[in-house]
Amino acid sequence: MYRTHNNGELRLQNVNSEVTLCGWVAKRRNFGALVFIDLRDRYGITQLVFNEDLATQISDVRNEYVLQVKGTVVERKDKNPKLATGEIEVAVREVKIVNTAITTPMIIADETDALEDTRLKYRYLDLRRPVLQKNLILRNRITLLVRNYLAKYGFTEVETPILCRSTPEGARDYLVPSRISKGEFYALPQSPQLYKQLLMVGGMDRYFQIARCFRDEDLRADRQPEFSQIDIEMSFVDEEDIWSMTEGLMKEIFKDIKGIDLPEFKRIPYDTCMERYGSDKPDLRFDMPLYNVSEVFANTEFKVFENCLNEGGIIQAMNVKNGADKFSRKQLDKLQDYVKVYGAKALANLKLTAEGFAGSVTKVLSDAEKEALRTMLNIEENDIVFFVADKKKVAQSSLGALRVKLGHDLDLINKDAYEFLWVTDFPMFEYDENENRYVAAHHPFTSPNLEDVDKLLSDPAHCYSRAYDLVLNGYELLSGSIRIHDQKLQEKVFEAIGMTLEEAHEKFSWFMDAFQYGTPPHGGVGIGLERLTMILAGTDNIRDVVAFPKTASASDLMAQAPSPVDPAQLKELGIETK
Amino acid sequence: MYRTHNNGELRLQNVNSEVTLCGWVAKRRNFGALVFIDLRDRYGITQLVFNEDLATQISDVRNEYVLQVKGTVVERKDKNPKLATGEIEVAVREVKIVNTAITTPMIIADETDALEDTRLKYRYLDLRRPVLQKNLILRNRITLLVRNYLAKYGFTEVETPILCRSTPEGARDYLVPSRISKGEFYALPQSPQLYKQLLMVGGMDRYFQIARCFRDEDLRADRQPEFSQIDIEMSFVDEEDIWSMTEGLMKEIFKDIKGIDLPEFKRIPYDTCMERYGSDKPDLRFDMPLYNVSEVFANTEFKVFENCLNEGGIIQAMNVKNGADKFSRKQLDKLQDYVKVYGAKALANLKLTAEGFAGSVTKVLSDAEKEALRTMLNIEENDIVFFVADKKKVAQSSLGALRVKLGHDLDLINKDAYEFLWVTDFPMFEYDENENRYVAAHHPFTSPNLEDVDKLLSDPAHCYSRAYDLVLNGYELLSGSIRIHDQKLQEKVFEAIGMTLEEAHEKFSWFMDAFQYGTPPHGGVGIGLERLTMILAGTDNIRDVVAFPKTASASDLMAQAPSPVDPAQLKELGIETK
Repeated sequence: MYRTHNNGELRLQNVNSEVTLCGWVAKRRNFGALVFIDLRDRYGITQLVFNEDLATQISDVRNEYVLQVKGTVVERKDKNPKLATGEIEVAVREVKIVNTAITTPMIIADETDALEDTRLKYRYLDLRRPVLQKNLILRNRITLLVRNYLAKYGFTEVETPILCRSTPEGARDYLVPSRISKGEFYALPQSPQLYKQLLMVGGMDRYFQIARCFRDEDLRADRQPEFSQIDIEMSFVDEEDIWSMTEGLMKEIFKDIKGIDLPEFKRIPYDTCMERYGSDKPDLRFDMPLYNVSEVFANTEFKVFENCLNEGGIIQAMNVKNGADKFSRKQLDKLQDYVKVYGAKALANLKLTAEGFAGSVTKVLSDAEKEALRTMLNIEENDIVFFVADKKKVAQSSLGALRVKLGHDLDLINKDAYEFLWVTDFPMFEYDENENRYVAAHHPFTSPNLEDVDKLLSDPAHCYSRAYDLVLNGYELLSGSIRIHDQKLQEKVFEAIGMTLEEAHEKFSWFMDAFQYGTPPHGGVGIGLERLTMILAGTDNIRDVVAFPKTASASDLMAQAPSPVDPAQLKELGIETK
Repeated sequence: MYRTHNNGELRLQNVNSEVTLCGWVAKRRNFGALVFIDLRDRYGITQLVFNEDLATQISDVRNEYVLQVKGTVVERKDKNPKLATGEIEVAVREVKIVNTAITTPMIIADETDALEDTRLKYRYLDLRRPVLQKNLILRNRITLLVRNYLAKYGFTEVETPILCRSTPEGARDYLVPSRISKGEFYALPQSPQLYKQLLMVGGMDRYFQIARCFRDEDLRADRQPEFSQIDIEMSFVDEEDIWSMTEGLMKEIFKDIKGIDLPEFKRIPYDTCMERYGSDKPDLRFDMPLYNVSEVFANTEFKVFENCLNEGGIIQAMNVKNGADKFSRKQLDKLQDYVKVYGAKALANLKLTAEGFAGSVTKVLSDAEKEALRTMLNIEENDIVFFVADKKKVAQSSLGALRVKLGHDLDLINKDAYEFLWVTDFPMFEYDENENRYVAAHHPFTSPNLEDVDKLLSDPAHCYSRAYDLVLNGYELLSGSIRIHDQKLQEKVFEAIGMTLEEAHEKFSWFMDAFQYGTPPHGGVGIGLERLTMILAGTDNIRDVVAFPKTASASDLMAQAPSPVDPAQLKELGIETK
């Protein structure tokens, strides 16, 4: 047996025990003739003491050497309260150098100044950092909680294929050439959507899977080309059943991991969300809502606002309480630049100072308008109101983005809060300017609101769907919907996004045919596992919660980079590279 | 709410309750003015009774229609003891046809005469058969048991990449063209072998994953191109630690699922296994061992045996107890044909009847030889002994195959038994006739036995490894090994399989470099999840335990078949099809 204990478990009650420990040298220091070594493993650190005789045996031993030691647990004189094992040390009697180590290219500690490229190239060393191990253990703790919770409620985890049929109407697929059907390709799944629906047709009733999903998109700090989704589907349910199941799951996770009793989740329809927060994933850890103040300016003489309204735009405003003295002229200019990134033409402001109204539009607004705003936005002394006058979408989203930015800049956000929000009643379609057609806002298997079914073809812009998102602290934690379970309705939705009946059947017959044989009503959710883990781990970098992340810059260094392959194999697959 | 109960849970104690049920029509029959319907879901079947008024509402309702009914639970007059809900029925008061169904192309019942192609094309209907649902639920029960068991012992489940670097020295990889690095390819993992070893280098200490693995091989009844492996790796362990952990896991599973307390697992070294059972995965549910009887024939006058021994072959024998009267001449001829498939030139036999020795070789063997055999093989009246004289490998494996065949044919196998066996001390290398070199018998990351390290290059044929298999009822349930954790030793093993140092580093530097930084001793196992589920479900067809299996013949019908893709995407990937 290599060890009797790990390096995190010895305590005062173990004093006088004979133990065998294994681990990595985290630190060594000499103290007179004695040598002290901190021995590290995943479980913690134990201090070892080597007497003069043994010290010579370990004279070569440096950081990251692997040791096996036998010795006696003794009480420490100078206890270290920061260490779980800080009350004891092990007086070593016997030492074996299990493996050596050359100097590592990075320091193995939570705080490291190594470049991310270095950390990714030497991921096996990066993974020795306790903080990364903690994140991976947290991730596993979440998945185990999810699995046991769902099992308790009768869900069956079913593994669906990774080698799939390529389905149109999604992001870019990864492709896998088929050796048997030369010239044809499998696709890696963007989600198990159609499989889980087939499982519902197949009567599995309550399915889940922690499913690997793939999208051939460019890398970002919060996006990986392969990611995991807690994928759930239920039969004979409506929204309330799914929401209550999901809330129960989240409450379990946050209770177990954070010790928090979550309150009932808020719900806001999509349109209200956009109006009030300029976002379909608002961060509710702080208030500061937006207002549509177009009415105030119905008869304005301020040309910019007047023109905007005449062109069908809106005037959106946000009151930053007690913020009038927080922005220099230069800073206000920078905020202008900020909203321009979101397509806004300008950012106006109005302050209330001890001397009365001030700010960029104070002179062009009438007193009546300012008084109306004062009432509507509850403007008090030292408040500053920002305005964007633009097309509705631009006005909402640019001011919504500014809201989040100022929330962070002005430190309005309670970092310990977890604010969940169901966003409901999403639009059924979005107009795609590139393709000159409506596309499904969620996906084309989402059920429209039943009262909108008749408008699917005649007025797609005003159809709402039975899709919903769960937002947490400004991030989309999951999205889901009640699905279509009627073949005719499915055909109509495909028609609305520009497919002929023939095209729809050509592309999806293998799926839609199933609807003829008694399909139950069903719906579900897909929860982003990495996002959930990132929030619980308190990081914004997805690479902190993935064992072997992909990375653009270090891609040629890492264990999972693409590489050239044997031309004979390509020939066997019937493909060639250009 | 769609339903108050499922169709498997109502009992006598629910009588007089008002309930709402949903499900599929499994059977309808008229009884006078009444209509009886068996309503089915994943949980069971409940009998519904519709009175005359309601009967008209459901006149169109046929099998596989989806119904929602409200009614009262009443006690049945003619109880059905075969059904968990057989003591009650539901007197329906209100019915809603939730969805219709056209006639299904197959009968939805455990017993079906549908062709497998039909079942796979309409997998969503096949999945409604209770037996398949039971198998998928069993599979999930196994994975949940595994996860909770391993969590209890400090293992962390870590997800390793699916988009990997292609590694040589394995089966055929599935390839994924990279859009970013045109002309290069990811590979889908054949196992997470190198990632889990890197996790050990990274100090994760105890890892597991229920990992999707891929091999681009042709389909068989017991093989799918994508499959799942319970993949486990541990640091600071030797074989005993791994075996005892694995045995504990198996005991937990068999206790929970079969109610069986498994005894301690047997262990037999590979060489002994081959000698005694002609197989490295012997079925120990019956005895009937093989014997190497070459010694008996050291001075034989029977030319066939003499020549065989002179050419370095062996004579392998098996005594089928009480089998002399079980084989007609024609059947014996068929057994000849059977062993020829395994390369044997002939199958000789010797019987002991009431009149003395008989059989094909009785005249050419001396009395002394026959007496020696009688003692060695304990030949009694009505026994029949089969012989194969051939090269050692052929003699062993052909007679080993015959052993299994006769075990089944003669009904020697206790179908309720679970006979586990650790096969240990595998050869380190196998000679590959095609490649004219030694290849790793397990994989090149397996540690050789320490006493054989010096023979790696000088005598690879006689090197043994620290690889082991766990065999259950004649199937390889898992294989694993203690890995190499020393860079020099790893280089030597690559050299033994014909790689130069440069080649080894070119192909594996990203992996081998890790060994320089203090790699712990480690080892693990990979358990075939499908095989384990098949054994526990009592099926030999892997498609019975996979939700959406791949199939050669129905591949163009199924949801996960390859298909042609948009040439624009191929262009973006820098590949073209020929």
